[in-house]
Amino acid sequence: MKNFIYKNPTKILFGKAMIAKLSNEIPSDARILLVYGGGSIKTNGIYNQVMDLLSAYYFEEFSGVKANHEYELLLKAVELIKEKQLNYILAVGGGSVIDACKFIAAAAKYKGDNPWDMMSIRYVVKEALAFSTIVTLPATGSEMNSGAVISYRAIKEKRSFKSELLFPQASVLDPTVVSSLPVRQIVNGIVDAFNHVFEQYMTEREGTILQDYFAESILHTLKAIGKDIIKDPSNYDLASDFMWSCTMALNGLIAQGVPTDWGIHAIGHELTALFQIDHARTLAIIGPRYYEHNFEFKKQKLAQYAERVWNVQEGDLEYKAKQAIVMTENFYHSLGISTKLSDYTSEYEGTAELIAERFTKRGWLGLGEKQNVSPDDVKEIILKSY
Amino acid sequence: MKNFIYKNPTKILFGKAMIAKLSNEIPSDARILLVYGGGSIKTNGIYNQVMDLLSAYYFEEFSGVKANHEYELLLKAVELIKEKQLNYILAVGGGSVIDACKFIAAAAKYKGDNPWDMMSIRYVVKEALAFSTIVTLPATGSEMNSGAVISYRAIKEKRSFKSELLFPQASVLDPTVVSSLPVRQIVNGIVDAFNHVFEQYMTEREGTILQDYFAESILHTLKAIGKDIIKDPSNYDLASDFMWSCTMALNGLIAQGVPTDWGIHAIGHELTALFQIDHARTLAIIGPRYYEHNFEFKKQKLAQYAERVWNVQEGDLEYKAKQAIVMTENFYHSLGISTKLSDYTSEYEGTAELIAERFTKRGWLGLGEKQNVSPDDVKEIILKSY
Repeated sequence: MKNFIYKNPTKILFGKAMIAKLSNEIPSDARILLVYGGGSIKTNGIYNQVMDLLSAYYFEEFSGVKANHEYELLLKAVELIKEKQLNYILAVGGGSVIDACKFIAAAAKYKGDNPWDMMSIRYVVKEALAFSTIVTLPATGSEMNSGAVISYRAIKEKRSFKSELLFPQASVLDPTVVSSLPVRQIVNGIVDAFNHVFEQYMTEREGTILQDYFAESILHTLKAIGKDIIKDPSNYDLASDFMWSCTMALNGLIAQGVPTDWGIHAIGHELTALFQIDHARTLAIIGPRYYEHNFEFKKQKLAQYAERVWNVQEGDLEYKAKQAIVMTENFYHSLGISTKLSDYTSEYEGTAELIAERFTKRGWLGLGEKQNVSPDDVKEIILKSY
Repeated sequence: MKNFIYKNPTKILFGKAMIAKLSNEIPSDARILLVYGGGSIKTNGIYNQVMDLLSAYYFEEFSGVKANHEYELLLKAVELIKEKQLNYILAVGGGSVIDACKFIAAAAKYKGDNPWDMMSIRYVVKEALAFSTIVTLPATGSEMNSGAVISYRAIKEKRSFKSELLFPQASVLDPTVVSSLPVRQIVNGIVDAFNHVFEQYMTEREGTILQDYFAESILHTLKAIGKDIIKDPSNYDLASDFMWSCTMALNGLIAQGVPTDWGIHAIGHELTALFQIDHARTLAIIGPRYYEHNFEFKKQKLAQYAERVWNVQEGDLEYKAKQAIVMTENFYHSLGISTKLSDYTSEYEGTAELIAERFTKRGWLGLGEKQNVSPDDVKEIILKSY
């Protein structure tokens, strides 16, 4: 196992009727910015619970945060914080809202001219407002990690940043929210979490027996509940396992001591930036082709995954590894998710070249665990995904 | 899944040469009590690394903390803290030393007359000194949890307490320490961690798919490395998986949202208090008989464990569940650990009655996940373990 330093200070409040307990976590003198997205929380009962919670605090509302951010809108939230001297944020939503909250928390304390300059894996956040979250859409794990991905629609960019200061203080995970989600959101969550595990698991390594089993635990669970939860999203037990799997898939635990990849995400983000395709679906489009393209150094792990998660016992290593990709793609299809770019946009011609060129311009000359997936490789992977 | 609230603020520094990095975690003005056990850290190189670390701090040494504490000795550490106005503790050792550190941290701030009065699951710690740990003996998980078990040899008692204030700030896990451990300590660690998982896993429950897989991940790993690491304790990869498994087995994660048992520990602690038998070995003595005695409501989960961890595929549920106990006991035997009380003491006669009576006197009328394991059941379980 590789050396690692790991700390996750977020307090998880998991279960029914947990929103009210946030009053134990948010300081009584907090001046709160309540950030949320559209109106869904007003129909599923969450907004009322939040209003009960916030009745004891000074707060301002800021709504309309969308799945792929309008960056200018986030800057308005920062202005509101400064104008009203707010000092705490409560994010109520899915990964986009929580990520927006992280950006706002850091931007509110940012000293430079243009907060977009923070959006780099190299930028070190020096100060940020404290915040908590209420998850309404299990998928990204942002509720228990310190990273955020921010879109800037006007320039078709999607970038990420990360800081120890960006862990939520507390996050409420109430599985009853799943019952009111559209199927599209649920399957996106499953595929998103599945791919979060892949990026931290499908790498060459030795001496990581426990970390492998932990990663496979999440895959087993998502596989086990996938089809059933679509049929019965109000099944609380299934929803609990779905929600907890999404959080555990990207709260840092399974990444400790192991090499990680994140190449699928790097390419997928571009498809979202260019075509507004749901994040999870970009991973389903790119993932299978990424593993086919990098088959030689991924096949050992692909075969282990096929054996343990899909119970592929017959055949040699090559066969098992190929089956791993087939079974995964079949799983996506069984959830109603297409793995072809052309099913999402008719304007796909030239995408491969455009993204390869973007990576070259940014100096991203090697993606993946070995930094050996070149812009040319990226082009080929995307071409095969048409 | 049951509702839960979970937070684990301990920072883990895992790997080679991590002791020096504690200087980033311990405040520069800390006045430190260095607590350790015997002289083993002076021969395995750890003491020198600790001295390098502490050269930048004011510190006092306190050594001689033993596996089953001399309570009076711990009070001397508290006196030393007060006398020298120390405000931080660094524990270097296994679970006994780390648990002693937790007791000292709380006792140093305790306002009452007799700190032993804190030793109750109902006592609420109001204040404690901050502390960090360096693990020299993987087993108890105390380096990443907030509980402690303290022995009081003079009155043959062993009690536990717990508080959010008793999480270590940081813990160093350097797997190279395993290479210099006696086999007896390594096998104790494996069996201890195995039983920590059992107490949080072998319970009746539904809707805990992921939590079950996580628990089984640790059992899989301990099973996979058990015999090999005894033969080759200097194998760094095996040592890493061993060490990380011990921490993950009792850092709270696998207990979230599920019923837990802890009956085996409750009985085992008495055997240690009475006969000074190594903690892990008391669990090996009691565990198999505990599951036989509670077979009816444990058999479903025992069978799942047999299938998934020991790959028992043939036979009906009863058969698989019985095999679970047989396979587990065989595993202990393969590590050289006897599961009979009479192999540890010739004075075992009357033990069953004595412990049952102790439980009755303390008002412990029902152990286990259903609180239905009565003192009479305890007596029978112990009688069968002779």
